[in-house]
Amino acid sequence: MKPMMNLKYLDKITSPAFVKKLDEEQTQALCAEIREVLIDTVSHTGGHLASNLGVVELTVALHKVFDSPKDKLIFDVGHQVYTHKLLTGRYERFSTLRQEGGISGFSRPNESEHDIFYSGHSGTSVSSAYGVVRGNQLNEDKSYTVAVIGDGSFTGGLVYEALNNAGRSDCRMIVVLNENEMSISRNVGAFARYLAVIRSKPEYVRFKARTECLLNHIPLIGKPVARLLMRTKSRIKNNLYGSNLFEDMGFRYMGPVDGHNIKQLTDALETAKLVKKPVLLHVHTTKGKGYTHAEHDPSLFHGISKFDIDSGEPVTCGTNFSEEFGRFMCEAALHDRTLCAVTAAMSIGTGLKGFEERFPRRFFDVGIAEEHAVTFSGGLARTGMKPVVALYSTFLQRAYDEILHDGALQKQKLVLAVDRAGLVGEDGETHQGIYDVAFLNSIPDVRIYSPAGYAELRHDMQQALYDDPGVVAVRYPRGQEPAFPEDYTPTFCAYDVYGSRDADVAVVTYGRVSAEAMHAIQGLDAKVIKLGRIKPIDPGAVREALSCKKVFFFEEGVRSAGVGEGFALLLLENGFGGQYSLTAIPDCFVPQASVQAQLKKFGLDAQSIRQKILA
Amino acid sequence: MKPMMNLKYLDKITSPAFVKKLDEEQTQALCAEIREVLIDTVSHTGGHLASNLGVVELTVALHKVFDSPKDKLIFDVGHQVYTHKLLTGRYERFSTLRQEGGISGFSRPNESEHDIFYSGHSGTSVSSAYGVVRGNQLNEDKSYTVAVIGDGSFTGGLVYEALNNAGRSDCRMIVVLNENEMSISRNVGAFARYLAVIRSKPEYVRFKARTECLLNHIPLIGKPVARLLMRTKSRIKNNLYGSNLFEDMGFRYMGPVDGHNIKQLTDALETAKLVKKPVLLHVHTTKGKGYTHAEHDPSLFHGISKFDIDSGEPVTCGTNFSEEFGRFMCEAALHDRTLCAVTAAMSIGTGLKGFEERFPRRFFDVGIAEEHAVTFSGGLARTGMKPVVALYSTFLQRAYDEILHDGALQKQKLVLAVDRAGLVGEDGETHQGIYDVAFLNSIPDVRIYSPAGYAELRHDMQQALYDDPGVVAVRYPRGQEPAFPEDYTPTFCAYDVYGSRDADVAVVTYGRVSAEAMHAIQGLDAKVIKLGRIKPIDPGAVREALSCKKVFFFEEGVRSAGVGEGFALLLLENGFGGQYSLTAIPDCFVPQASVQAQLKKFGLDAQSIRQKILA
Repeated sequence: MKPMMNLKYLDKITSPAFVKKLDEEQTQALCAEIREVLIDTVSHTGGHLASNLGVVELTVALHKVFDSPKDKLIFDVGHQVYTHKLLTGRYERFSTLRQEGGISGFSRPNESEHDIFYSGHSGTSVSSAYGVVRGNQLNEDKSYTVAVIGDGSFTGGLVYEALNNAGRSDCRMIVVLNENEMSISRNVGAFARYLAVIRSKPEYVRFKARTECLLNHIPLIGKPVARLLMRTKSRIKNNLYGSNLFEDMGFRYMGPVDGHNIKQLTDALETAKLVKKPVLLHVHTTKGKGYTHAEHDPSLFHGISKFDIDSGEPVTCGTNFSEEFGRFMCEAALHDRTLCAVTAAMSIGTGLKGFEERFPRRFFDVGIAEEHAVTFSGGLARTGMKPVVALYSTFLQRAYDEILHDGALQKQKLVLAVDRAGLVGEDGETHQGIYDVAFLNSIPDVRIYSPAGYAELRHDMQQALYDDPGVVAVRYPRGQEPAFPEDYTPTFCAYDVYGSRDADVAVVTYGRVSAEAMHAIQGLDAKVIKLGRIKPIDPGAVREALSCKKVFFFEEGVRSAGVGEGFALLLLENGFGGQYSLTAIPDCFVPQASVQAQLKKFGLDAQSIRQKILA
Repeated sequence: MKPMMNLKYLDKITSPAFVKKLDEEQTQALCAEIREVLIDTVSHTGGHLASNLGVVELTVALHKVFDSPKDKLIFDVGHQVYTHKLLTGRYERFSTLRQEGGISGFSRPNESEHDIFYSGHSGTSVSSAYGVVRGNQLNEDKSYTVAVIGDGSFTGGLVYEALNNAGRSDCRMIVVLNENEMSISRNVGAFARYLAVIRSKPEYVRFKARTECLLNHIPLIGKPVARLLMRTKSRIKNNLYGSNLFEDMGFRYMGPVDGHNIKQLTDALETAKLVKKPVLLHVHTTKGKGYTHAEHDPSLFHGISKFDIDSGEPVTCGTNFSEEFGRFMCEAALHDRTLCAVTAAMSIGTGLKGFEERFPRRFFDVGIAEEHAVTFSGGLARTGMKPVVALYSTFLQRAYDEILHDGALQKQKLVLAVDRAGLVGEDGETHQGIYDVAFLNSIPDVRIYSPAGYAELRHDMQQALYDDPGVVAVRYPRGQEPAFPEDYTPTFCAYDVYGSRDADVAVVTYGRVSAEAMHAIQGLDAKVIKLGRIKPIDPGAVREALSCKKVFFFEEGVRSAGVGEGFALLLLENGFGGQYSLTAIPDCFVPQASVQAQLKKFGLDAQSIRQKILA
């Protein structure tokens, strides 16, 4: 156990106004306290560590310069908001981070008026902020709007769409680009290289520093002068170094600024406030700053479960679906030279690190660009390659149109490996993988498998790659395979029946919940019909249920548009005359809690299933 | 009637090799023939005219320089492929353009090996092409891959994601940026302004011309020299004018080139072939080129129905859902100063032209950027504005994640006006609006209305804006309201009942098909339950069906994840013991035909419905 921390500032902060009063030394002490709390808390709760350690000074500087919540600070992705939470009156509850009923690991308006949007998907901040800017303009509201966004998010197209709109607007708006040369995995693409080029021009920085120095001596009356300077600077800069990409997009560019230097940051932000146009402030930070293990391996400490502070070792718990998937991919790639892996900044999360190392020519990390991942894979498939696109369920949502238009319609072999399918636990409402079945259901010719264990995962991947035509999704949950009863043996067919085949009560389900269901019917005259392939549903599975008096469907996914509805239709069309009951996730968003607690909440754990049958 | 055209070249083309043999004069004559055929055909069939007139010379030049289908020519959006079709052996069938069983108005691999992908949504070409490039690389296939893309598509994020990946790759790949200063409506955003700036630098062009002139005299042995020149040019250019956005993204930039000058085009394309890196060739064309009416009003002639060639007047047929929507918006905006309209390059198509003119400050055309349209609107809503996002159903698909993450989850007032919902007729499989109900069904807290007539549309919009909470979608079909029986009066409730209330046979349906259903049951002992609100389904509507012996559900949308499945579930859970039958669009893609033919094909017209009931 670590000793109780001796805090001087952090436990006294009830509003962000507090930080405005601190001098430079005090501010630095505060930042040190914040880092200590971040490392300590995340080591117990798990969460996003490296990104939060990187933006401590930046967040403090933002609260020094702007007046939240009047001014709107909009943090992209929302997993870099821990410091923001600590500065906005949430220190006391911070130890409940990511726990049921506790502080969320993301931006959540229901938690504080300082959180402007629910946020968990990357690249939304500039669009959202620009909407606020234009709305404020219509309301004649003069407050400031700031989007804080990492360079990783800049690999996604939504940011570009927003810049294209905002850049032409001449609206006052500040985008802080937090460049940490990472996104989640190491940053990919031309944009990352481009930023490195900007940073490598020392003249640029020096010029910038001189200008800022000047500006600092003309704080209020200096506004017109500042504007003049900005203009002159821009002109000189253009001649010296050429305009840059952001200026091409209509933004005034400032930077790069040392993102761990409070003075530089506040000066730059004050200057940005003076500009009556969209400004992009380029800040350079170190991901994991202040915690050696995280600085050394920021990808590992991006989103991490509990870990040991001294050793930096995560508290591991054996293999999981992602790792098993990665292992399968490596084995298959040895024998199949056309097999390719495509992922969106998630080579570690999806278990593809090994594949990346062993088969670099056939591994494609496209950045946080799920749409491109799918469309690009369609191109690969056109040449005879077999692309497997590995994405988390919640991010796959972004590629709905591409799966339909650039996947299914083209009738090409494309396998979607859908990780984190189903309830995801502590990441909460923005990350739930409970929609993929429903939205994939609506796309013609897409097959969906929902393996419940590792052996089944391997079988379904094999089937998807080598037996099925067109687009096939193989979806599997976060974490480990569930414990099945000892007398259950998977048949790897489109469906399994467990229990007494002649029973009048059938429990129909798929994926992880099938283990819960099998435990639930122990000792009862009932059977579990476990669907392995959930689209299309096998007619045999329907026949198994048709003769039953009572059919209970349990679904770890949304009720509306899910498999339970489709199964009801098939029963009804085939003359089913018994009782039917569907237990699934109703129309709501599911907040953070452990997966087990979430399953229980929606009646999907063994005990609830048993109660439902017996009722 | 126009006289039979006297063709010299076009009717002799069986393969694109033909154009390689033509000299400059002959090529120009061919282009004139192509224009004549385009104008004549589209005046009879309707289709995309302005964009196709703009790329006649460009397409001819591409086929002169490259060897399709060995080299892959990938046309973005696919509505600019008419000339490509004429040059690849499809002249004879060209008069069947957009007709059932005829030539598609878009790129379609099932029509010709020269069409590489099914294409109808914008911005996919660079991603697809880059996939082909990487796949070819793995296959050691040395052929060329060219993406042809309009500047309008550059307002969408997918292109940027693709450029970011391709730009760093050092792969050989050619992107032809066809700048016509339009997209569909006049181009918006910083990118468009940026292109104008590039074009306005005469030195740039002159420098380019000189280099090209040089290159032309060293055709084969000159390759190393050409490379050297490119490098030198690039260096000098950077010093003189600064690098440009495309070069920042890792592309070699060439241009701008006059897109109606075959010589300039072929020279530039030959030069681009020599470069062993990704090249962006900037071509400047005039949308509607060669047909005065289309040059004058390219937006009108973007996608047009039949028109009179001499006057340029479309054959109109009264008001339609889009116009009625636009009218409602203008009236509502007069009384509600918070009402805003957001669209994605479709101000005319969605009927918002009048709103744009009367309320410019509250009108936002974001470019072809559906994701941003929704997320941006979430920002507007956060400030108390009431944004209405008007998109075609097929393009709304792109914003699935944003509707969920930046709309529904935020619990903000956001109205989606979903135009072209249902079967769309002649645009075919890439444009069907048959998925929106299914994918919106899966998003929590979203309400969906499906008005079947203009009065209902106005009522539902009113309800969506001022009575319902959260995200509400109002979806309506392309074209005009259907003719209802005279004895039907809409009640504007969540559902209507038409026919004999005590009948044992119920026909449940929604939207346009409800008129077909009402005609179908004339003289039968049956009732139609017409759903106005399709999510959530009103319990009263379920009760109306529950007592019937036979329930027939007819749905103009996909069967899987649609309303018919949900209705089956509700019946079954409420103890329904009768027969149920769902007629909807099965797992397939629906090719071009008239809407009426498509309805008939899937058993959704009055006659088929009646037959189904009587069977």
